[in-house]
Amino acid sequence: MKSNSDRRSFLKTLGAGSFALPLISAIPQKPKEKYTGKKLGIALVGLGSYATQRIGVGLEGSEYWNVTGIVTGTPSKIPAWKEKWGIQDKNVFNYENFHKIKDAKDIDVVYICLPNSMHAEYTIKAAKAGKHVISEKPMATNVADAEAMVKACDEAGVKLAIGYRCHFEPFNMQIMKYAKEETFGHINFIESSFGFRIGDPKQWRLNGKLAGGGPLMDVGIYCINAARYVTNQEPVSVSANFGPITDPDRFGEVEESVTWHIEFPDKTLFHGASSYKTNIEKFHASGPKGWMETSPSFSYGPLKGQTSLGPMNLPIVQHQQYQMEGMGPLFLSKDPIPDHCSGLEGVKDMKILMAIYESARNGGKKIWL
Amino acid sequence: MKSNSDRRSFLKTLGAGSFALPLISAIPQKPKEKYTGKKLGIALVGLGSYATQRIGVGLEGSEYWNVTGIVTGTPSKIPAWKEKWGIQDKNVFNYENFHKIKDAKDIDVVYICLPNSMHAEYTIKAAKAGKHVISEKPMATNVADAEAMVKACDEAGVKLAIGYRCHFEPFNMQIMKYAKEETFGHINFIESSFGFRIGDPKQWRLNGKLAGGGPLMDVGIYCINAARYVTNQEPVSVSANFGPITDPDRFGEVEESVTWHIEFPDKTLFHGASSYKTNIEKFHASGPKGWMETSPSFSYGPLKGQTSLGPMNLPIVQHQQYQMEGMGPLFLSKDPIPDHCSGLEGVKDMKILMAIYESARNGGKKIWL
Repeated sequence: MKSNSDRRSFLKTLGAGSFALPLISAIPQKPKEKYTGKKLGIALVGLGSYATQRIGVGLEGSEYWNVTGIVTGTPSKIPAWKEKWGIQDKNVFNYENFHKIKDAKDIDVVYICLPNSMHAEYTIKAAKAGKHVISEKPMATNVADAEAMVKACDEAGVKLAIGYRCHFEPFNMQIMKYAKEETFGHINFIESSFGFRIGDPKQWRLNGKLAGGGPLMDVGIYCINAARYVTNQEPVSVSANFGPITDPDRFGEVEESVTWHIEFPDKTLFHGASSYKTNIEKFHASGPKGWMETSPSFSYGPLKGQTSLGPMNLPIVQHQQYQMEGMGPLFLSKDPIPDHCSGLEGVKDMKILMAIYESARNGGKKIWL
Repeated sequence: MKSNSDRRSFLKTLGAGSFALPLISAIPQKPKEKYTGKKLGIALVGLGSYATQRIGVGLEGSEYWNVTGIVTGTPSKIPAWKEKWGIQDKNVFNYENFHKIKDAKDIDVVYICLPNSMHAEYTIKAAKAGKHVISEKPMATNVADAEAMVKACDEAGVKLAIGYRCHFEPFNMQIMKYAKEETFGHINFIESSFGFRIGDPKQWRLNGKLAGGGPLMDVGIYCINAARYVTNQEPVSVSANFGPITDPDRFGEVEESVTWHIEFPDKTLFHGASSYKTNIEKFHASGPKGWMETSPSFSYGPLKGQTSLGPMNLPIVQHQQYQMEGMGPLFLSKDPIPDHCSGLEGVKDMKILMAIYESARNGGKKIWL
């Protein structure tokens, strides 16, 4: 964790809402008074399953947030949201009239849950409308778009956060803590892979233009981000290879699998894979004094962890609730969004993802960063 | 498993000896009468810790084997072996008079437990002395030596086996069985890594000439062999990269770490790493219907396994005893050594190991096999 403000926000007593949230015993707790000020109004952009079943659920009973707007191209989705959150008609937008969101004074933040390639466009539009933004990961499909998002938010004087929920999740926070405190010595080896067998061949994740890439953009990014939050460094080199295409119907536009070999300035070696043809989800890191491991590591849970000292006994939480309750104070504060979930953090990941693709397109050629 | 003879041998009732050996319940058992014929005389060449604490222990109480000779350059090691096995003075050799082993009629087989680069020399010498040979893995330090070993044994009319003990070990045999029966569908993704933090910087494993390579030759070979016995194919391409050197004192002559990306004819992707700077030992394979995983996977045990169907409840055995009791009938039989632990099997692995090194020396260039 790179700032104190977000840690404090996370460590508050999360008592409200539809989930019983035990605290992370491993991280010292500072009791905090319950927030009773005006809630932040948030509008969800894109009402797919992530918005509906994850973020929308995570926001239930929130101490900080109230869903005051929605943006959707599918009118049939509107009534359920209106009923659940009491959203006014004036705050229901579609993609044609999205710019009018600037007039909705009760919307402070928009959360972009659209396919990857649309994050940049709607982040920039939201910034121009004077709204703070949370964009899902990957923040964009290329570095230029990612940088344009940061610039647009800076110029508009609004905040930009990326939905890096692992930074608010107990197992991943514990992994960060172990690394920072060198519980297992200075980490020098990381192996992490994330993949799943993808279903519907017509989904946007397999559309090159919408997704910007395959499993690497979708889930491999978690491994990359984890290697960075464990080493607290930026890689110096990337070598990568695409796996073979076994299913040309699904994988005409995005990779089916990719493996990488990444090196950090302190000579930590990080290798792994991402794939849409296997269910795998692992994070392993070791140093001279031992190892730590999670599997599942990054998905919605329940996560599980083990170290050379024993099992990681940590609470199983609703990740999006922890993320949103953690992010509330970041948007209420006058301080900038802390590094770990900032737009610049997203840009750093994007540069690595693009280097992996560049190397793999060039037959594994080493790319220096 | 590629032959019936070795399976039968493995499935016999292993009642004798100093270990209680439960049978593998997952593999159908054919009861077999205890062997009561003349035991094979075996001479161990190189009395280091592997010969003494592993093979020597595995041979205790054997149904098939009697240790009738030793070859050592260290006279102080002789008395304990003579006392334990009743070895005659005439059957105690050193590296200068090794050729005289040809006159020892009560030595049928020699087991080469020397540093890697010496396997070829002593295998060829043993073959010329008319002795069957078991060589530890890796069988040699280059393909030419490995092929010369096979040729020498063929020409001398003696058998050559490689100490591929995983082919006689319950967890690995079960993995092979799952793959063959397509319990999880046709395997299309394999991730396997094996490494350990190496100690004494003066040991032969870090000497380029004696070891022929670093962790890849020593333990990475298990991952490579496993990918082959699970896919039952030979790779078509190899891409690999060396990890950074963090300890130049230890790693002046052999690699510290290496990662690889290997593809098979059926488009199975296999990636992994081997390292002398981290304790890691994993095997994961998956297909469309599920996954199987071991960790630890290949070391002396206790091994542990898990699949998408549940835990692998298999006996914990002394691997070298299972190997030697499995190999006994192979040397008593008139049939050739079955593929899975033959010299040619060793040559196949050696070609892949060398391709990994060639690719890594060339910055990850894809090597076609």
